[in-house]
Amino acid sequence: MFPEKFLAWGRSKSCIRELAAYGNARKAQIGEDKVFDFSLGNPSVPAPDCVNKCIKELLDTEGGTIHGYTPAVGLPGLRKVIAEDLNKKSTVHISPDYIYVCCGAAAGLVVALRALLMPGDEVIAFAPFFPEYRVFTEGAGGKLVCVKPDEALQPDIEDFEKAISEKTKAVIVNTPNNPSGVVLRADTLGKIGEILKKAEEKYGHSIYLISDEPYRELVYDGEPVPCVFDYYHNTVMCYSFSKSLSLPGERIGYLALSSAIEQAERDDLFATICGAARAAGYVNAPSLMQRVIEKCIGSTSDLSVYKENRELLYNGLKELGFKCVYPDGAFYLFMKCPEEDAKAFSEKAKKHELLLVPSDDFGMGGYVRIAYCVPADMIRRSMPAFKALAEEYGL
Amino acid sequence: MFPEKFLAWGRSKSCIRELAAYGNARKAQIGEDKVFDFSLGNPSVPAPDCVNKCIKELLDTEGGTIHGYTPAVGLPGLRKVIAEDLNKKSTVHISPDYIYVCCGAAAGLVVALRALLMPGDEVIAFAPFFPEYRVFTEGAGGKLVCVKPDEALQPDIEDFEKAISEKTKAVIVNTPNNPSGVVLRADTLGKIGEILKKAEEKYGHSIYLISDEPYRELVYDGEPVPCVFDYYHNTVMCYSFSKSLSLPGERIGYLALSSAIEQAERDDLFATICGAARAAGYVNAPSLMQRVIEKCIGSTSDLSVYKENRELLYNGLKELGFKCVYPDGAFYLFMKCPEEDAKAFSEKAKKHELLLVPSDDFGMGGYVRIAYCVPADMIRRSMPAFKALAEEYGL
Repeated sequence: MFPEKFLAWGRSKSCIRELAAYGNARKAQIGEDKVFDFSLGNPSVPAPDCVNKCIKELLDTEGGTIHGYTPAVGLPGLRKVIAEDLNKKSTVHISPDYIYVCCGAAAGLVVALRALLMPGDEVIAFAPFFPEYRVFTEGAGGKLVCVKPDEALQPDIEDFEKAISEKTKAVIVNTPNNPSGVVLRADTLGKIGEILKKAEEKYGHSIYLISDEPYRELVYDGEPVPCVFDYYHNTVMCYSFSKSLSLPGERIGYLALSSAIEQAERDDLFATICGAARAAGYVNAPSLMQRVIEKCIGSTSDLSVYKENRELLYNGLKELGFKCVYPDGAFYLFMKCPEEDAKAFSEKAKKHELLLVPSDDFGMGGYVRIAYCVPADMIRRSMPAFKALAEEYGL
Repeated sequence: MFPEKFLAWGRSKSCIRELAAYGNARKAQIGEDKVFDFSLGNPSVPAPDCVNKCIKELLDTEGGTIHGYTPAVGLPGLRKVIAEDLNKKSTVHISPDYIYVCCGAAAGLVVALRALLMPGDEVIAFAPFFPEYRVFTEGAGGKLVCVKPDEALQPDIEDFEKAISEKTKAVIVNTPNNPSGVVLRADTLGKIGEILKKAEEKYGHSIYLISDEPYRELVYDGEPVPCVFDYYHNTVMCYSFSKSLSLPGERIGYLALSSAIEQAERDDLFATICGAARAAGYVNAPSLMQRVIEKCIGSTSDLSVYKENRELLYNGLKELGFKCVYPDGAFYLFMKCPEEDAKAFSEKAKKHELLLVPSDDFGMGGYVRIAYCVPADMIRRSMPAFKALAEEYGL
């Protein structure tokens, strides 16, 4: 008697949250230190000192007013510093007027998709992709179309060209990528931009590039992530402070429209996004956190910890004979399963108390995602379990 | 090229937020103290000390972990204390398993409506009602059906019976009421419950009572608000800590299902609500605030301030010849306009720098809403302006 899809999504949970729930139950059963839980992308590094210091200062100086409503689009001062921050990264000038402060990147993605899609419209995602893209797209009345990756896990450009149809309204990119840690190369982004421009001309309507980039600052080899605004005009950026400032539970991020979007269309799109957010019950992003971000923008948690974890895990697994994609960023390692069925492999790993997310829900089989935003000590202690797993497969 | 409704909702804003925006612009123009802004329901009383004290304690003792993801339904400890709190108010035992911690009552209403409605289904609201009920209902694919009030602004029960159809899936009550401050009497709630039970039998499907009650604690005459769970079985409660703890910007509240809902249906409904929330991008309610509420539940801001404001405003306006509904609760006064056209009256009030929300968007004409969650001093200083307005109408 209730809407079927919502019931199914409520019952199934995400594969990641399901594994995490299993992990918590298992820890209660056999002890916290006996389970090697690599399931959740919950930052292991605490928020930088500036965050908690800033909260205390706000409470002491403006304690009476900081919890009140803010404008639906966010505090003016915060929108201004976000625009300034973006303008350091891109040659396309971003205006505070087209920044919508929202409850994390998830909220941004949802309202962008709802603003862009009519029933039956298509959204392209590049595998491997965050499973909620499917829920968000279908929840907005659209259909998710998957494009396979090449061997380096960059999008397969030929497959992408074939996937575009008259119904394509949006393309989601996610760089650095969850679950693979791969950063989209500048030349790949350039090709995506060119193909989309041609498709816009061919079909006579706008196609939007939606960039989901909560991991933007989590890169470890000195090269900054190419900024999507520089590669395509009709671009919507969805950002979250969840990972860079280790605040995933606080639900604070923003959506920004490229100034290269034609003016009248940009005004309409921004208003439509505000309307979609209003209809979804988003009144404003949490007010205290808006004020914290206004002060702490540009800071990050101690991300060097993740870099060390990456080396530890990647080298350890390589030595054991596993094949992994070397991740440029984020805090995930994408490991090829030594058998075709990723779910079966994940189940076998569970027997060794290793919680690895099978890749099927990421839009492709044969891999597991290993979240290394965990204590380095756990990675070290997990190695005998990985060794036993490798031996089971004769690696 | 974008979904029309979202564009319209994004462009129009709510009448309340529009008036508040005008007020801010006007204050910048002629000075803060020259504008009598009664537009917004933003609590003027600060959060109680326990809130800011608790935030500091959490930062000092658990600073590294408090900003992480929580379960989508909320922290187990918080769900438990919410159930305990509800079980003091109602004879129907409420279980933590059917409590969904969410980003304020708005998020609760939206996910409840999305879980309950199929396209074309009808939702009944009793005028006067919070204008966003229309946006939330239509955003969920439903149609809002309005029932007129009787002279005391209780629902007109005959009109209510006539409004129910085969398509009715939900009825929203809001007590104490925004915009009128009226508390639903126990006998009225009892009648609503009886009529709904009969309608369920007649049409052979469940009809849900959705109770929006962010103002539950804001009553000033000693009588607690009758608890909806005691009057009808298929009841969904949406609560927010926005007003009782003066935290409207922090977006923290909950949704609770009555244990009187048949077990299998209750499980399905709860799962559907979780799925609808997931599809709307609600990952979890803000994590720091979840922990704060766990400690501060049962506390309130100093609500006596609103009681004093009520007397000051009500008596002042009565003396000037205006007709007002005496509000039992919330922090709104519903004043009859001395002309039929509430919008025209609101415009004339603006000329006296009085910002009063016209009632049309609340589902009925002829009134203005005056939010008295403002400094008492502003109420006093506004009286000459009200006097001039009264004189303009020959009162």
